[in-house]
Amino acid sequence: MEVVKLKEEVRRVMEKARRRSASIGFVPTMGYFHEGHLSLMRIARSRCDFTVVSIFVNPIQFAPGEDLAGYPRDLERDLSLAEKEGVDLVFTPAVEEMHAPDRSTFVEETEISKGLCGKSRPGHFRGVTTVVAKLFNIVGPCLAVFGRKDLQQLAVVRRMVRDLDFPVEILAAPIVREADGLAMSSRNVYLSPEERRRAAGLYRGLEKGARYLALSASSDDLAPIIRNLSREIEEETGGRLEYLTPVDREMIEVEKAGDCRFLAAALRLPSARLIDNVEVPAGEPYA
Amino acid sequence: MEVVKLKEEVRRVMEKARRRSASIGFVPTMGYFHEGHLSLMRIARSRCDFTVVSIFVNPIQFAPGEDLAGYPRDLERDLSLAEKEGVDLVFTPAVEEMHAPDRSTFVEETEISKGLCGKSRPGHFRGVTTVVAKLFNIVGPCLAVFGRKDLQQLAVVRRMVRDLDFPVEILAAPIVREADGLAMSSRNVYLSPEERRRAAGLYRGLEKGARYLALSASSDDLAPIIRNLSREIEEETGGRLEYLTPVDREMIEVEKAGDCRFLAAALRLPSARLIDNVEVPAGEPYA
Repeated sequence: MEVVKLKEEVRRVMEKARRRSASIGFVPTMGYFHEGHLSLMRIARSRCDFTVVSIFVNPIQFAPGEDLAGYPRDLERDLSLAEKEGVDLVFTPAVEEMHAPDRSTFVEETEISKGLCGKSRPGHFRGVTTVVAKLFNIVGPCLAVFGRKDLQQLAVVRRMVRDLDFPVEILAAPIVREADGLAMSSRNVYLSPEERRRAAGLYRGLEKGARYLALSASSDDLAPIIRNLSREIEEETGGRLEYLTPVDREMIEVEKAGDCRFLAAALRLPSARLIDNVEVPAGEPYA
Repeated sequence: MEVVKLKEEVRRVMEKARRRSASIGFVPTMGYFHEGHLSLMRIARSRCDFTVVSIFVNPIQFAPGEDLAGYPRDLERDLSLAEKEGVDLVFTPAVEEMHAPDRSTFVEETEISKGLCGKSRPGHFRGVTTVVAKLFNIVGPCLAVFGRKDLQQLAVVRRMVRDLDFPVEILAAPIVREADGLAMSSRNVYLSPEERRRAAGLYRGLEKGARYLALSASSDDLAPIIRNLSREIEEETGGRLEYLTPVDREMIEVEKAGDCRFLAAALRLPSARLIDNVEVPAGEPYA
C-alpha cells in the first residue's frame, strides 16, 4: 500500500494504474475509521482492480463553530486498517495541498442541499461537493463508494455527478450499526457513557416510524405521526431533534406517506450531533 | 471527422482514443466559426494527437435579455471548416443533452468573475464555468485552448482548473484581428456597415492606451489617463464604454501603471457589445 501526501504523487500512481487498464475504485473519507469505512473499502475492492482511499478532514465543509479542530484523528491506526483491507493507495493531503489561500471556485448544489442538514450547517454541502469534485479530478476513479448514513450527502453527490457529467459511478453502501442499532460514526466518540447508552433510541424510533409509515401509505397528513414520534425519540434519547423528516430518494421532504422512501433525522445531544436514517419498507429497494 | 450529438457517443470515441494513448486537445466553442476559432483548432492539433471541438450555444451563460435566441449559427459551414482543420471529433449537443430541466449544480468562481463583464452580465461566468466543467468531464482532454479575446473568461477558467484540480492544461491563443484591427468575434455580424467601419477605433484606442501605460509605469493614478482615453474611444467609435480597465494577469483591476498587464474594454454599440484587450508591453510575455 502506498501512502502519499501530494496531488502530483496521486496522479503519477493513477497514471500507472490506468496504463495497465486497472479499474479504479475510490473511497473519500475524513479518517478515524470504523467498520462503516472499512465496509466501503471492501465494496470498492470487490468491484475494482485498484482501490484509493483519501483521508482529509476538509475544513470548508465545517460551518463556523463546528467541531473542525476537535474532529477525531488517528492516522497510524487508519493506515494499518486500510492496509489490512487491501487498499492500494491512501491519499493524506495537508490542508494547504487541497485549498489555496486565495481559492475562489466552488461547486454548489442548490436544491437537494437546502433542507435537512443544509439548514443547520450553512456552507456544509458546498464544502462537500467542492472537495469531492477536487478528489474526483485528482484520483480519476470510475467508481466511488459513499455510506448511506450520510444520505443527503449521497443524494447531493449523485446530483452533482449527474449535473456536471463526472464519469464516476456512485455506489451507496448500507449503514453499519453497533449491536444496539446506533449507526457507526467517527463522532460517536464524543458521546458520554450515558449519552451512548441512550443514543440507540434514535435508530429504534426511526425503525418504528418507518414501519408505521409503510402501513400508513395512504395517509396524506404525516404531521401528527412525526410529532408523536419526535416526542418519543427525544424522551428515549434525552436529545433534541433538529429534524425528523420523511423524504423521497433524493432527500426532498414529502407530504404523503406513499411518496416516502426514507425517514431521516438529526439529533442533538449535549456532546454530539448524530444523524441517521432508515428506509421505509415499500417499493423497490434503494441501490 | 466524426460528428456526434450525445455525451455517451463522445465518451465511446474518447475511450478508444485513450486506449491507444492519444493525447487529447479540446476547443470548446459556441460555433459560427471565424479565423479565431480555426486558430485554436490549429494549436490543439499541433499539440495533441486527437482534437475535439464542441459547438454549443450554452443558454445558461446568457443573462436575461441577452442575444441567446439571435446568436448566429451555421452548423454546416462550421463542420466543413472544422474538417478542413483536421479536427477528429465535433460534439454538437442539443440543449436537453447538456442541461437537465431540474439541474441544480453549478460551478462558480467568486473573485475574478465579479468585475468587468461579470458586472453587466449576471450569471454569465457561472454559466461558463459550469458548462466548461461539464465538457471537461465529458471529453477528458489533457489540453484545452481558449482565445485571449475573452481574457476574463480565460482567467476564470484557469482559476477554476487550479481550484478544482482539473487535469487539463489551459492554453491561451492570441487574438486574431481583421485587417483594420477589430478583434474577430461571431458577434461582429451584428454590426451595421457604419458601426463596423468605426469599430476598430476600440482596438486603436486600446493600443494607444497600452503604449501610454507602459511609458507611465511609475504613475499611481491612472484615472485621468483612463478618462481621456475613454473619451477618445467613445468619440472614434460612436459607442459607449461599459468599462475600460487596467488589469493584472488575473483580470483584477490595478491602480498603478506598473502593476498593469492588460488594458481591457467592453464597448456598447447600438447593435452589438464588443470586448477587446491588449497587453501592456512590459514584463514577461503572457503565455
